[in-house]
Order: sequence, then structure tokens, then C-alpha cells
Amino acid sequence: MRSLLGFFKGLNTLLLFIPVSIVLHFTPGMNPLWVFAAAALAIVPLAGMMGEATEELAKRLGSAMGGLLNATFGNATELIIGLFAIHEGLIDLVKASIVGSIIGNILLVLGASILAGGIKHKTQSFNQDQAESHAINLLLATLSLAVPAMIASHYHQLNTTQNNDIVNLSIGVAGVMLITYLASLFFSLKTHEKIFRSNDAEENEEPHWSKAKAFLVLGISTVLVALESEFLVKSVEGAAKSMGVNEVFIGIIIVAIIGNAAEHSTAVMMALKNKMDITINIAIGSSIQIAMFVAPVLVFAGLLMGHPMTFIFNMAELAVIGLSAIIVAFIATDGKCHWLEGAQLLAAYVVIALAFYFLP
Amino acid sequence: MRSLLGFFKGLNTLLLFIPVSIVLHFTPGMNPLWVFAAAALAIVPLAGMMGEATEELAKRLGSAMGGLLNATFGNATELIIGLFAIHEGLIDLVKASIVGSIIGNILLVLGASILAGGIKHKTQSFNQDQAESHAINLLLATLSLAVPAMIASHYHQLNTTQNNDIVNLSIGVAGVMLITYLASLFFSLKTHEKIFRSNDAEENEEPHWSKAKAFLVLGISTVLVALESEFLVKSVEGAAKSMGVNEVFIGIIIVAIIGNAAEHSTAVMMALKNKMDITINIAIGSSIQIAMFVAPVLVFAGLLMGHPMTFIFNMAELAVIGLSAIIVAFIATDGKCHWLEGAQLLAAYVVIALAFYFLP
Amino acid sequence: MRSLLGFFKGLNTLLLFIPVSIVLHFTPGMNPLWVFAAAALAIVPLAGMMGEATEELAKRLGSAMGGLLNATFGNATELIIGLFAIHEGLIDLVKASIVGSIIGNILLVLGASILAGGIKHKTQSFNQDQAESHAINLLLATLSLAVPAMIASHYHQLNTTQNNDIVNLSIGVAGVMLITYLASLFFSLKTHEKIFRSNDAEENEEPHWSKAKAFLVLGISTVLVALESEFLVKSVEGAAKSMGVNEVFIGIIIVAIIGNAAEHSTAVMMALKNKMDITINIAIGSSIQIAMFVAPVLVFAGLLMGHPMTFIFNMAELAVIGLSAIIVAFIATDGKCHWLEGAQLLAAYVVIALAFYFLP
Repeated sequence: MRSLLGFFKGLNTLLLFIPVSIVLHFTPGMNPLWVFAAAALAIVPLAGMMGEATEELAKRLGSAMGGLLNATFGNATELIIGLFAIHEGLIDLVKASIVGSIIGNILLVLGASILAGGIKHKTQSFNQDQAESHAINLLLATLSLAVPAMIASHYHQLNTTQNNDIVNLSIGVAGVMLITYLASLFFSLKTHEKIFRSNDAEENEEPHWSKAKAFLVLGISTVLVALESEFLVKSVEGAAKSMGVNEVFIGIIIVAIIGNAAEHSTAVMMALKNKMDITINIAIGSSIQIAMFVAPVLVFAGLLMGHPMTFIFNMAELAVIGLSAIIVAFIATDGKCHWLEGAQLLAAYVVIALAFYFLP
Repeated sequence: MRSLLGFFKGLNTLLLFIPVSIVLHFTPGMNPLWVFAAAALAIVPLAGMMGEATEELAKRLGSAMGGLLNATFGNATELIIGLFAIHEGLIDLVKASIVGSIIGNILLVLGASILAGGIKHKTQSFNQDQAESHAINLLLATLSLAVPAMIASHYHQLNTTQNNDIVNLSIGVAGVMLITYLASLFFSLKTHEKIFRSNDAEENEEPHWSKAKAFLVLGISTVLVALESEFLVKSVEGAAKSMGVNEVFIGIIIVAIIGNAAEHSTAVMMALKNKMDITINIAIGSSIQIAMFVAPVLVFAGLLMGHPMTFIFNMAELAVIGLSAIIVAFIATDGKCHWLEGAQLLAAYVVIALAFYFLP
Repeated sequence: MRSLLGFFKGLNTLLLFIPVSIVLHFTPGMNPLWVFAAAALAIVPLAGMMGEATEELAKRLGSAMGGLLNATFGNATELIIGLFAIHEGLIDLVKASIVGSIIGNILLVLGASILAGGIKHKTQSFNQDQAESHAINLLLATLSLAVPAMIASHYHQLNTTQNNDIVNLSIGVAGVMLITYLASLFFSLKTHEKIFRSNDAEENEEPHWSKAKAFLVLGISTVLVALESEFLVKSVEGAAKSMGVNEVFIGIIIVAIIGNAAEHSTAVMMALKNKMDITINIAIGSSIQIAMFVAPVLVFAGLLMGHPMTFIFNMAELAVIGLSAIIVAFIATDGKCHWLEGAQLLAAYVVIALAFYFLP
């Protein structure tokens, strides 16, 4: 854990971008690209701090409550950015960043971890039962995301239909996904917690921080993430124009990377320590959490805010999620991994990034 | 087997709906919804009786002929309903009920069984070789169903094209599927019957019924299923209007559940007895039988009746079959199951049902 | 190896079609169907000779350089036919023959091998690690082929858009695939060559030919394949009209079979000798080579020749590649095979061939 803390300290220099982003945001006539960049860089260490504080708190709360806290607050950054973006009516950006977080975790994060770990350790192995359980979970989440869109696209010819039926269906699907997510927490924390008890557990599971410190850091970082998210969301359209790229690319690639940078570095470090169970937990677990918890919560939040977000993703988004989930499932059921698989996952991510850069 | 018979006796009170449906059908001005409901309820125990009689007869015929009888008569209810619906020209309803039977068996029946069995028995395991063989069979059936539609949709832009080429292709594909189905029977009954010889075989494989009784029950129940199928098919359009739901939903969800209710209860009971091999045989085996035997036979029957049914399913139908088949394949190759996988399969089924309820 | 050489000698009588095709090609008013047929039959033994000479040379070059030679020259026939077809501007034919080679190898070649081997040997097993590595490679190649097309089809509604963005994206994807292919060679020849060192290695790995003979045969057969490829490509449109079939069918089925006939026979013979590792290496390895080496090289060649070939395959083509790859992955991760799986792969191939015959 020490090298991890060291890395976070390194990241912490990025906290300087908090005052920078505030100044830029309030400077009249400022190019929104600079605001966007500063806010994005500021979010990276803040997301890391939120994650660190959540874990410290989780250790003090015992396994069940701690697990629940991790499961709901583990992707809080994505949730907060999503809420602000919905508030601005940037529904397509939110959907793109959900898709980007899902594939970012299973292609970029997992790919980089397997590549780095595989170069250091020739063959790495992991708990097959746990990986399989994750993989099936991910495939079922994919099915739930894909089915409404595919049926809608067949009968309506348009993905964008925002009629009542689509909204009602989205609420129904979001409800089913949240219930299934709760069921899977009950499974992994209560009835079958042994499957998920890894041999790779941290040597030192005692909390480093006092409860008060954990609460304080969590509170402050959450407030600051919220502030930076607002800067980010308000500057995104201008920044996209300024860079000459489309908003879908920004959502799928850039926003998704910002929100997952901290997880990314932890996953790679665990792979280098040959603790692949933790790496897989982070990468696949995060994808599942985005699909089955963050996305449904954003659907409900959208309704309350008067900007209904449907659960209808477009075919291009579903194709990348579906194919990625199938590949990850094969890698996971294998129980072993080599550096080439990591390189291939990264190659798939680059191909997807290129396609979203050139096409929309 | 005793508790199973007990359950069938409970179901048998539904036989009262036979006279009820006859009276309702011939009452002038009757709301078709009531005819539909009565016929549907009457079919449930009749389908159970047909299945029971088929199995009793199969035991007396020896393993090869018995296997063949099971393989052709095992889904006779779906076949009979399909024939009457084709006769009425309700081609889309037939296709929807084929799709509904396939996913009903692998999501609803298998999901409920794994959930119920998993709550009673913490971890259940099953014969991986047999499950894998079933899963690959199911995936190949999926490919054969999907390829013509995908190619047709690309080149014609319309799924509904009813031209000569599509009809000829449908005959060709139906032929290939029937031959492959026969090959798979030859495989499981002759050349590799050991893979399919389960440890979970019934304690008491002796027939309970005389040959004469089995024949009599099979004959009577078949005639009555045919009668009720006609009532069902003639009232379905009026019933759909009366309920305010679309016909696709009725085909995919309601008709499919009616035809599979008996299998459903047997599969769940076997899971509760921790005989997962039988459960998986029923659920996946039934799906394969529908796809590779019932569907091709209906294509040929449609030609003979002058209502050609093409083998071109729509993208929404194929998406749900394809994704379900892939998930079931991963669960099957795993060799183990837990209650959560059952809950997830059920969740997928609910999402699909919601989508077909709101969208078409 | 002796029976293999015997078989090649049998094939060698087809070399008579070289002079026949030359005479037919230069006969004025000749029906192009006869030129096409003669050139096709002449290519079959020439492709076999190229393969044989490549392997002999590879044995003399040592494992690393030999592996590299096999990896680049292993599908030289497809590459040469592709180059001539691009030169004639027959871009759709080239794409169709790429798709046809991929599915021809994993459905027709692998299916026939498993069927033939499975009838002789009840159950055949193979190195699961190697097969899994191949399968994951194939799935990642599929993802890379599919993603650009799916995103393009969503945003442009047209697969055929030949604008600048699509060309740039195609170059980018082709580059990523070539780099990944090089990485996978480095993996299998250098860092993890043990996984790929089969127990089924040929008893007699010493070269049969002198270096000079190998070079000579390789040179002559390459020149003749080039000559016959030109005849083939120049007569294909006329031949298609004359047979009354569409060009897509010719590309996907006929041209693909011509180019793979030699591999086909070797794979079946190895399966009959119960050397399934070699069979799987040939079948899946060839598909991967076509997707990740031949296709990208043709993209770059097209640019240089002024006939840009995009990396955008149509949905029908991607559907068959995707579903085939998933099925092969399940068969491969299983580690065992039976004749039924072979029959099912062949059935899938027949269904695809029927669909491409009737529909485009």
C-alpha cells in the first residue's frame, strides 16, 4: 500500500489545478478548452482521494457495511459528473461517458494491467470462480443494456425516440438492474462471500486513517469533485469545438479516463505485485458498478431533474460493450493471462477510440 | 416422481377450463379475452399430460425409440399451437412464440430452477461435458437462425420481404437444421450416449402406466390440445385488443409460457432435488428442440398450407436469442451454479418482457 | 508427411490446367466461365506447392525466421489474388474473399477436420492453452473488424461511404492490427513459444528439399499463382453472369475455397492422424493471419494502387464472422471435440453459403 500512497502523493501535485480551474472559470472571455483541461486534471487526484477515503471508511465499518459503501461510492466521481451533465441537458454526453467507463475499465484498465503484469511475471493466474462470476454478471448487464435498444431500433427505426413508452421502459429496466445489483451485493457480501475472499488480500488491512480524517477527506473531496464537475460540464461544448473533436469522443474517451484514472493506477500496481484477483475485481467490478448502479441511478435522477435520460444506447455503443464483454468473459474463464492478452485489449481500445474520433 | 405426480394432480384442476372454454367459444358476442384465457389455462394441464404420456411410452419403447419419441413429441404443444396459428395466417405470432419458447426455456425456466435450487443447496454442480455439448448446439442453432436474417436485412433493408428467394432460402435452412437435429439425436442416442447418461437418472425408471393407458392419454390430450389451440388462435387478436397489448408480446411471453408451463415445473422440481443435469437437459434441450425441430417443421407445414413462413426473424428477436444463448453457454461451461445466476437470468427475462410490452 | 506428399502428387494433375487456362484466356470470344474454372483449378495445386516450399524453407531458416516466413507467406495465395482484384477495382470481391477465407477456415476446414477425425477417433483432445490463445486472438481480430463498421453504420447510415474519414480510420485500424499481429508473433515465437510447442509435432522435422529447390519452387509457383490470379480476376465478372450467381457469393465461397484447398486437405489429414493441435493451428491460425495480416496489407496496397479499400465490412459479413468466432471459441476452450461439433460447423457453413447464394 505504501507505493500506492506514494503514487497518490505524486498525483497530488495535480491538486494545484483546483485554484487554476477556479481562476480560469471566472476569467471572462477565457477559451473553454483551458477551463476543461484544468478541471479534468483537478478531478484526477480528487477522484483518487475520494476512493482512498471510501476504502479507509469501509475498513472501519466492517465487511458488510464497508462492502455496501464501496459498492455505492466506488464510482462516485462518474456519478457526480453524470448528475451535473444531466442538469445541463447533456444526455448524450452522459450516455457516452457511461459506455466509455464500461469499456475503459475492461479494455484500457484491464489491458494495461495484464500487459504490465505479464511483462514482469511470465504467466499470471487468478481465482477462476470469482472471475467467472464477474464475467457472467457483466454479460447480463450487457444484455439488459442491449435488449431495449435493439427492440426499440427495430420497431421505431430511431434510437432517439423520446416518447412515453421509451421513458417507462427505461424506468422499468433501471429498476430491474438496481434490484439485481442489490442481489449481487447480497450474494458477494453475505451468502457466498467465500468465493470473493481473495488470497491476494492486502497484507495490512488495518485502517491508516482515523474515522474523522476519513469522513473529512471524503466530504471535502466530494465537494471539490462537484465543483470541478460543474466547470467541466459547462466548458465541454466549447472545448470540443475548440479542439475540433466531437462530443461523443469526449464522453467516451476523455471524460471516462478522467473518472477512472485513480482506479487505473491501482489496478496496474496490483498486477505488478502479481495480485491479479484485485486487478480483476477493480476492472470488471467497476464496469459492472457503472452499468448496474451508476447508470440506473442517473436514469432516475434525470427524471427528477426534468431531463429524462432513456436507457436506449445506440448500436455503435452497444456493439463495443457487447464484444468487449464477450472477450473479457473468455479471458476471465481462462484463469490465466499473458502480456499478449493485455496488448490485444489495448489494441481493441485504440481501434474503438480511433473509430469514435473519426466517425461521429 | 411422486411429488411430480402430485403437482400434476394439482394442475389437473385446470382441466375444468376445457368445458368452460368450449361454452365461452360458442357463446355469441363473448369477449374473446375470456375465450383466450380459458383456452390458455386448459392447455397447461393438457401439455403436462401429453408430456407425461410421452415419457411413459418412451420408457416402454427402449432407449433409442424412446429417445426419438421424446425428441419429436417433447414440444408437441408448441407444434400444435403453431400449426393452427399458421392456418389462420398468424405468421408473426408463430415466429414470436418460437422466439418466446427458446428464451423462455433458457432464461425463465433455467433461471427459476437455478434460483430455487440455489437457495436450497448453496452450490450446485452438473455434468460439464453434457452442458457444453448442449450449449454449443444452442449457439449453432442461433447462428443458423441469425445468418439468413442478417444477410436479408443487409441486402433488402426489409425483413418482411416475402419473395421467392427468401422462401427458397428458408426451405434450405430448415432442411439443414432438421438434418443437423437428426445428427444430434444419432450422437446422443447412439455414438456418444455415455456423455448424456446422467448420474441424476430417476431412481425409478420403470413405467408407471400400461402401454394402452399411455397411448390413450396421449391421444386424448393431443386432440384436446388441438381443440384448445384452435380456440386460442381464433381469439388471440380480439384478446390482444381487449387487453391493450400487442400481438408480439402475446406470442413471445404469454403463448410461450402456456406451452412450457409443465416443463417449467418439472425443471424447478429437479433443481430442488439437486438433479441439475435433468434441469439443464429440460431447459436447454427444449430450446434446441424448438429451434432445430419445431421451427423447421413449421416452415415446411406453412408451405403445404399455402401460408409460407420464412426463416427470417427480426433483429430484436435475434438479439435476445443470441445474447441469451451466449450467457447460457458461459453458465453451462462453468459446471457450477449459484442462486445469483438464476436471479440474473430471471432479471434478463423481465427486461426482455418489459421491452416487448412497451415497444412494438 | 508421406501421405501428404502423396496427396499433393494427386493434386498435381491439376497443374495441367495451367496451359489450359493460358489457351482459354487468349482464345477470342471464349466464355469467361471456362477461363475462371481453369484458372481456379490451376491455383489449387500451385497454392499447395507454395505452402510446401514455404515450409521447407522455414525448416532451414531456424524457428524464429522460419516462423516469420510462415506467418507472412502462409496465406500468400489469398494475398496475391487480393492484389490483382484490387488492381481491377473489385474491392467488394476482395472484402468478400477475406470474409470467406476467415469463415472458410473456422467453419469448413475445422468442421470437416473435426467430423473426419471424430468418426475415426471417438473423442479427440487438444492443447487447451494454445487453442484458447488462438480463440481470444480471433475474437479480438473480430472486434477490430467489427467496431469501425458498426460505428460507421450508425453515424453515416451507409457502409459504402468512401469519404476521407473512413479512409483515415481504415489506415489507423490496419496499422493497429499489423502491430498487434507482430506482437502475437513475438509472443508465439519468442516469449511464450512453449505454449505453442505441440506434442503433435511432426515425427520428421528435417527438411526434405535443398534450399535451392525450395527457393526455386517458391519462386515458380508464386509467379504462376500471380498469372492465374490475373486470369481469375479478369474473368470473374463474366463468369458470375454466366453462372447466374452474384459476385459476393463467388468471393465468399468460391474464391475462398480455391485459396484454402491445400490447407484444407492438410488439416483433415492431421485430424485423421489424431493430431488435433496441428489441425487447430492451421484452421484458426489461418483465419487470424487473414484478418490481421492479409487484410491490413491489402488496405495499404489499395491506397498505393489508387483503389482505396476501406476496413468497413457490411453487417451481414460481420454477423457471420462474429457468430463463427464465438462458436469456435467455445469449442476451443472445451479442449475436446466430437464428430457432432464438426457436423454442426459444416451445417453453419452450408447455411451461410445458402444465404449468400440466394440473397445479395
